[in-house]
Amino acid sequence: MIEISGESLFRMEQDALGSAAVPKDAYYGIHTLRAKDNFPISGRPVNRRIIEALLLVKKAAATVNGKLGFLAASVSSGIQIACDELLSGELDDQFVTDAYQGGAGTSTNMNVNEVIANLAIEHLGGTKGDYRLIHPIDHVNLHQSTNDVYPTALRIAAIPLLRTLSGQMALLQEGLQAKEKEFADIVRLGRTQLMDALPIMAGQSFGAYAKAAARDRWRLYKAEERLREINLGGTAVGTGMNAPPGYVYAVAEELREISGLGLSRSDFPMDVTQNMDVFVEVSGLLKAAAVNLLKISGDFRLLNSGPDGGIGEYKLPPVQAGSSIMPGKVNPVIAEMIGSVSMRVIANDTAITLAAASGQLELNAFIPLIAESLLESLELMIHAVPVFHERCVGGLKLDRERCSDHLERCGVMAAAAVPYIGYDAAAELHKEAAATGRTFADLLEERGLMTEMQGSAAIQQLRSVQAGIPGHTERDPL
Amino acid sequence: MIEISGESLFRMEQDALGSAAVPKDAYYGIHTLRAKDNFPISGRPVNRRIIEALLLVKKAAATVNGKLGFLAASVSSGIQIACDELLSGELDDQFVTDAYQGGAGTSTNMNVNEVIANLAIEHLGGTKGDYRLIHPIDHVNLHQSTNDVYPTALRIAAIPLLRTLSGQMALLQEGLQAKEKEFADIVRLGRTQLMDALPIMAGQSFGAYAKAAARDRWRLYKAEERLREINLGGTAVGTGMNAPPGYVYAVAEELREISGLGLSRSDFPMDVTQNMDVFVEVSGLLKAAAVNLLKISGDFRLLNSGPDGGIGEYKLPPVQAGSSIMPGKVNPVIAEMIGSVSMRVIANDTAITLAAASGQLELNAFIPLIAESLLESLELMIHAVPVFHERCVGGLKLDRERCSDHLERCGVMAAAAVPYIGYDAAAELHKEAAATGRTFADLLEERGLMTEMQGSAAIQQLRSVQAGIPGHTERDPL
Amino acid sequence: MIEISGESLFRMEQDALGSAAVPKDAYYGIHTLRAKDNFPISGRPVNRRIIEALLLVKKAAATVNGKLGFLAASVSSGIQIACDELLSGELDDQFVTDAYQGGAGTSTNMNVNEVIANLAIEHLGGTKGDYRLIHPIDHVNLHQSTNDVYPTALRIAAIPLLRTLSGQMALLQEGLQAKEKEFADIVRLGRTQLMDALPIMAGQSFGAYAKAAARDRWRLYKAEERLREINLGGTAVGTGMNAPPGYVYAVAEELREISGLGLSRSDFPMDVTQNMDVFVEVSGLLKAAAVNLLKISGDFRLLNSGPDGGIGEYKLPPVQAGSSIMPGKVNPVIAEMIGSVSMRVIANDTAITLAAASGQLELNAFIPLIAESLLESLELMIHAVPVFHERCVGGLKLDRERCSDHLERCGVMAAAAVPYIGYDAAAELHKEAAATGRTFADLLEERGLMTEMQGSAAIQQLRSVQAGIPGHTERDPL
Amino acid sequence: MIEISGESLFRMEQDALGSAAVPKDAYYGIHTLRAKDNFPISGRPVNRRIIEALLLVKKAAATVNGKLGFLAASVSSGIQIACDELLSGELDDQFVTDAYQGGAGTSTNMNVNEVIANLAIEHLGGTKGDYRLIHPIDHVNLHQSTNDVYPTALRIAAIPLLRTLSGQMALLQEGLQAKEKEFADIVRLGRTQLMDALPIMAGQSFGAYAKAAARDRWRLYKAEERLREINLGGTAVGTGMNAPPGYVYAVAEELREISGLGLSRSDFPMDVTQNMDVFVEVSGLLKAAAVNLLKISGDFRLLNSGPDGGIGEYKLPPVQAGSSIMPGKVNPVIAEMIGSVSMRVIANDTAITLAAASGQLELNAFIPLIAESLLESLELMIHAVPVFHERCVGGLKLDRERCSDHLERCGVMAAAAVPYIGYDAAAELHKEAAATGRTFADLLEERGLMTEMQGSAAIQQLRSVQAGIPGHTERDPL
Repeated sequence: MIEISGESLFRMEQDALGSAAVPKDAYYGIHTLRAKDNFPISGRPVNRRIIEALLLVKKAAATVNGKLGFLAASVSSGIQIACDELLSGELDDQFVTDAYQGGAGTSTNMNVNEVIANLAIEHLGGTKGDYRLIHPIDHVNLHQSTNDVYPTALRIAAIPLLRTLSGQMALLQEGLQAKEKEFADIVRLGRTQLMDALPIMAGQSFGAYAKAAARDRWRLYKAEERLREINLGGTAVGTGMNAPPGYVYAVAEELREISGLGLSRSDFPMDVTQNMDVFVEVSGLLKAAAVNLLKISGDFRLLNSGPDGGIGEYKLPPVQAGSSIMPGKVNPVIAEMIGSVSMRVIANDTAITLAAASGQLELNAFIPLIAESLLESLELMIHAVPVFHERCVGGLKLDRERCSDHLERCGVMAAAAVPYIGYDAAAELHKEAAATGRTFADLLEERGLMTEMQGSAAIQQLRSVQAGIPGHTERDPL
Repeated sequence: MIEISGESLFRMEQDALGSAAVPKDAYYGIHTLRAKDNFPISGRPVNRRIIEALLLVKKAAATVNGKLGFLAASVSSGIQIACDELLSGELDDQFVTDAYQGGAGTSTNMNVNEVIANLAIEHLGGTKGDYRLIHPIDHVNLHQSTNDVYPTALRIAAIPLLRTLSGQMALLQEGLQAKEKEFADIVRLGRTQLMDALPIMAGQSFGAYAKAAARDRWRLYKAEERLREINLGGTAVGTGMNAPPGYVYAVAEELREISGLGLSRSDFPMDVTQNMDVFVEVSGLLKAAAVNLLKISGDFRLLNSGPDGGIGEYKLPPVQAGSSIMPGKVNPVIAEMIGSVSMRVIANDTAITLAAASGQLELNAFIPLIAESLLESLELMIHAVPVFHERCVGGLKLDRERCSDHLERCGVMAAAAVPYIGYDAAAELHKEAAATGRTFADLLEERGLMTEMQGSAAIQQLRSVQAGIPGHTERDPL
Repeated sequence: MIEISGESLFRMEQDALGSAAVPKDAYYGIHTLRAKDNFPISGRPVNRRIIEALLLVKKAAATVNGKLGFLAASVSSGIQIACDELLSGELDDQFVTDAYQGGAGTSTNMNVNEVIANLAIEHLGGTKGDYRLIHPIDHVNLHQSTNDVYPTALRIAAIPLLRTLSGQMALLQEGLQAKEKEFADIVRLGRTQLMDALPIMAGQSFGAYAKAAARDRWRLYKAEERLREINLGGTAVGTGMNAPPGYVYAVAEELREISGLGLSRSDFPMDVTQNMDVFVEVSGLLKAAAVNLLKISGDFRLLNSGPDGGIGEYKLPPVQAGSSIMPGKVNPVIAEMIGSVSMRVIANDTAITLAAASGQLELNAFIPLIAESLLESLELMIHAVPVFHERCVGGLKLDRERCSDHLERCGVMAAAAVPYIGYDAAAELHKEAAATGRTFADLLEERGLMTEMQGSAAIQQLRSVQAGIPGHTERDPL
Repeated sequence: MIEISGESLFRMEQDALGSAAVPKDAYYGIHTLRAKDNFPISGRPVNRRIIEALLLVKKAAATVNGKLGFLAASVSSGIQIACDELLSGELDDQFVTDAYQGGAGTSTNMNVNEVIANLAIEHLGGTKGDYRLIHPIDHVNLHQSTNDVYPTALRIAAIPLLRTLSGQMALLQEGLQAKEKEFADIVRLGRTQLMDALPIMAGQSFGAYAKAAARDRWRLYKAEERLREINLGGTAVGTGMNAPPGYVYAVAEELREISGLGLSRSDFPMDVTQNMDVFVEVSGLLKAAAVNLLKISGDFRLLNSGPDGGIGEYKLPPVQAGSSIMPGKVNPVIAEMIGSVSMRVIANDTAITLAAASGQLELNAFIPLIAESLLESLELMIHAVPVFHERCVGGLKLDRERCSDHLERCGVMAAAAVPYIGYDAAAELHKEAAATGRTFADLLEERGLMTEMQGSAAIQQLRSVQAGIPGHTERDPL
């Protein structure tokens, strides 16, 4: 497919399969070229955060290999400088391997190795492809394997995202708590199974949401611990073959420092190389957050329904016109957006579960799919949660009149009467009230079932949503 | 675990692993005993329909093997009689293998072979365990393998359930169409994204539900075709080894007749033995039905919400008291039940997908999980759909006053005005109407934006939910 | 966020929420701007195929509205020309709404409306934003709603992809059938539950794969029927309000012609507007294909395992070097890639199911997620299947020596002996053969259990994998 | 359906819907009868552990209500005694509500209330149905709602199962560690992507499995914390209406004592009533365990494949004959069984996620589905893990000869040579070795690329699987 159309446009490179023509100005080399040809699948490159994390790993390895004398000083520093430049975003278009690829990340690792090598070669005054100066494998990848580098990189990519998301969940929690306070004195009708139930304080709902967000915050915060253990130094199967012990100890320490993350060397790298359950665990926590966001945003959409023909107790802030045909219609699009994102997070959990369950023997070949899915979930949430917080929760208003109307209209008094007249009698009166249009309180009085004093105290308490039996501070013993 | 506590309570049987003591009164034998010991997992026996289907297969094989002289007449008829008795429900407690088992169904197949053999042995005057008379493998399983018998049995078990469910979907469709007619003349507010949109006829909603049910009916009806192809005669890997050609042709024909199902012999049994995609396909269709039922039942729950503090346009028939604390509360429990069942069907699709994707080489070892999940989905739907139809759809009423109130209150007139005054102007007026509490029609007139005639015609048409531009039968050309 | 930094860089536009500054050179307008601000979620634009399909719909509507006199000729043709230009790929960067958005596709629809309008305005000599010339809603969106336009567009986007994928499955089927022929005369060991079972012809495996691919091809081909019914003309809730009947009939016909797809107007557009089960159905079929591809590629990886320490009967074509640490290692990366893609397709099915089940009343707000997921699944498969076909199936070789070795080493002769000496005796001999290292055939002879003639005929037939009882063309009657 | 066929067989009971005939000998009452009629769905009763947990809650409430004088002493003690009897398993057949039901558990709660009441009534000398003595709602359910009782019961049911499963995971971990020790000195070929990679110690694999099991053990152990917070006392919507404060504080304490679990009263019961994310979290952890079990059991099946035509390095203990047609075939049925169970656990996670995401406002109507699915997952795992441990892991043997053969045959020496001769040269030699059949070591020597001393040291070290560069304790600096 790739043919040499002139010496000036291509350079020839070799690999175990033969030789191929690489575009002369490409910083990537033959291994990347093969991957490009083999995986023209999604048109989407590997997540940028994986690339950055790999660059950090390469830099750490080069630093340590330099210090320990495994790399000449010029080679080591050449690699380090190249890594820094690439980390700053230069040559981003050279990371061309597709998000969907076979091979446990080998192609991505080689892509990074080759781009670093060629950039460093140029800095040393060489020509791209002259790997005698700096070799993608013998130098950049020295003492490494895709199989220790990639799982390490995925952790480095995920941890900061987890921290960010945890922080955003904290902000969302605070936003919900602000609403809890704002609506602390407004009573609204509580509904179970969508049917009129008992009064609650409108603020309490937001308190309940905030509790859920607080759990998410905490879970995501704690999840980082799972990801700190890295297998770098384990090389291909976790035994550390071809990695000198001095390097193994130093590189983890170096990476810990330059990453600023609390990484630690696994005492059993073979485990980390082949087992992916920690990603299933983290994705499961993201799924729990997604479920909470679906619940909260679903409630918003329900209570915001209307404005006239729905429940209409909430007023979500308008953020865009809602219809190309119905003027003035405004839709709960931010709540719907967070719902869509949550569904995608749940779907990504399916992919992560399938991939993690497909590990075989000393490796899981599907870790690129785990990476793509997990990082997508994290990034979507990181982008969506603040929008939800700022453009939906923050500006949410209550329609106090609606809240009050719904409460007065409905038959919650019947529940209040149970401690006094029993369930069956209360049910009977409720039925009669509904049929005749009379109020429950009227019927109670007419039957002499409740003294007026008790009745009004009960009604009062109902409306203030205190725990306990309406009309009594504590019930008299029998 | 099983020990010989006296000659009178146990009999000794042998298999390739050695010998073991089988309870003397057990019709099952040592292979079943091993499976019982190996799989004390769910406490739930294999789905009865699989057992019945296996009995049909065994009967067909015995009949043909008898006719062709592979089995002595007495043995053949002994097996057939035993199958008939077992099909009638006798000795059900002898089918003891757990729903969760390893081994592609071998344990279930052996359980059936052994129970048939021992029952037939008794009929011949023998003692249970005297397999010289009738041997579970050499006679009952003659010319068969679990690997052709079990996939065939799963099809035999599933087809009648598909037919039944398709029939019930047809009844549901009719029930929904009856409602379409019943509510044909009632206008109610249509809502998109839960926000007030345009008027629709209440009956139309049920028409839309009926269309979905009709697709389900048709899909489930057609799905049967996928399942008719059987691999019986293919034996262990689909090559038909150890099955004489005469038998192979005759047994499919025999099974077709005694099952009454349109089964046909696959022209490539190896495919049917190892590929499970048809079950994924069928489960996918069940999932589509589940999605429709979730949508319909969700709508029911939304429109039934209240009675006072919700939308309250639908009145689902009360079927049980709804609360142990709130007298008179009635909940949409049938709609919730069908929702739960639908979620289980979706979950079962996950199991079926995972199992089907786990086939390896000439067999899929996880077909028992496919069977358990698929038959559960079918049976749950078969039990739930008629309940939903009869106890929820059938008795559903409309609150006409609510429907009318919601319609009059909301700003749908703005949409009707767009063809006359443009989107932006209509949006402006809508905003003013909401702010001032005046009607949209009033504002239109005040601005002289619509002649009275056109206006009232438009309002009239809006209320009758005809297609086209309200107020015009066809719009004048420019 | 967007502020006016000079009159020369921005233009002001209005919507129901107020006014905002749109970049002066942007072809999109205020509605798109709002969406950009509201949905900074994935950084990924809406699938290009949805945009193209919407452009086709817009063109059809403008054509018909022009013919029927609802739009002035200059406006109608201006819109048509703009659509053609945009379809050719011009101004692609103007379609900026994020793949994850709230609102049933309104933002995407408005984005398309605005870009068309402004491009057409320029062609008429106007300035972007001067919507008196051509208005995004009053003209481009005339007689349409997002709610009929978007579900129609999704079908238009999906149908050609389904056709393409069906065609590729047909090619894959042919590729597999070519291998069936190529390996027709090679016997290899069949394995059930990964354990040595009975001999099969190596070609038969590919025949079984081809059967599965043929079903996929057929299913995907037939699935198109489901998608042909469109609700265009139904406008917001399916009643067709604001769409003149003449337009309604003509626009579907027009769209059918310019799309070249066999689209037909639904006789019940309200159904199509709110029910998403057909997408669940189609996704379910894609999932069935994914399951088949996982099975086939899993088999390839198993049988290719080694080269020395695995089964090693298949030799997948090398497509890239496999390891940065182990020279000469080549991995089955194409088979792994198709596995990854299949897992993603299964995950997308989760998203589609969740979204489809979340429809409420007259609309499903989550159709953009359905679109994103379904089109991604289709495109991934379309890109991955030919690669799998060409770079994996096509070049697959057999190691005939390995196939033969495995067959001779294993105890399949025991099964062949069952019809002659019974199951228990055969099992006994098999055990002895394994323990002593002697061949099964030797032991048979030693015991005088089989005449030599029968024995060698049996062995012969075993090796030629014919159906029936080895050593007999048809078994003698008893 | 239920008709009075004689006064002697039925008693009449009343509820809000009217009256109905309850079988005279039934301990359940009209509410249960309605549920029986409404939910003839799965034929499977609610999980027994939910019943037991509800009985504990009822007992605690009766005890506290007695102590505080809300119930007469005879009524309180009558209820307590009935609860104890029912906990011991009496009248199990009276808990007849179906596992699939609408209504957030109301039917199950009422079933329990009614059975307790009628049993207690009989103890007081009354007749079943004479609720003046003890009333299912006014007495047994006093100060409770399904909505606080059921989420509390689910936690009480799940915690002991989590503890048990965590303990079993610990045992499995120990079993795997025993194998780690047992196989500590056996080298076998490590494989990545199923291709020959580098040598590992056979014991290390089990060490890696043990690490995964240890994480599962720890996660499940910690998960209990999530479930300890109960909403008992919150009644219907979490506000505690109708529950006197004295009762609220005492009942949680009482329940903590009689359950022996570290339960604590939520400081925000409304959260616990409506949010189900903790169950998603716990199910996610079960899913992580399922993924590990799929990985481990998949490895077992791979390495056990053969015995002759597969990898054959592991010898799983035979537990049953594997084929009805192939004598002597033994299949890895225990490994397959644990795989099936794991797939079901993953599928149950789908159900739990869907149900948890479907909560609306003050309640989640689908908590019975969460309960059914979560408890099923826990019980399946509890039953399956010990079987896997005892019948599969425990008796697993290695075929040392096979391990050694595979290692010698394959080209792992090439990797060992990289530090000495570079990647490209090593790849070149590997290719030549494969083509010529010569050993890699031979070629190295021939080319003078490695001194013999270094070479044999390298080979030695390779075989002992030490970390570092084969042939050097530490590589010389450049």
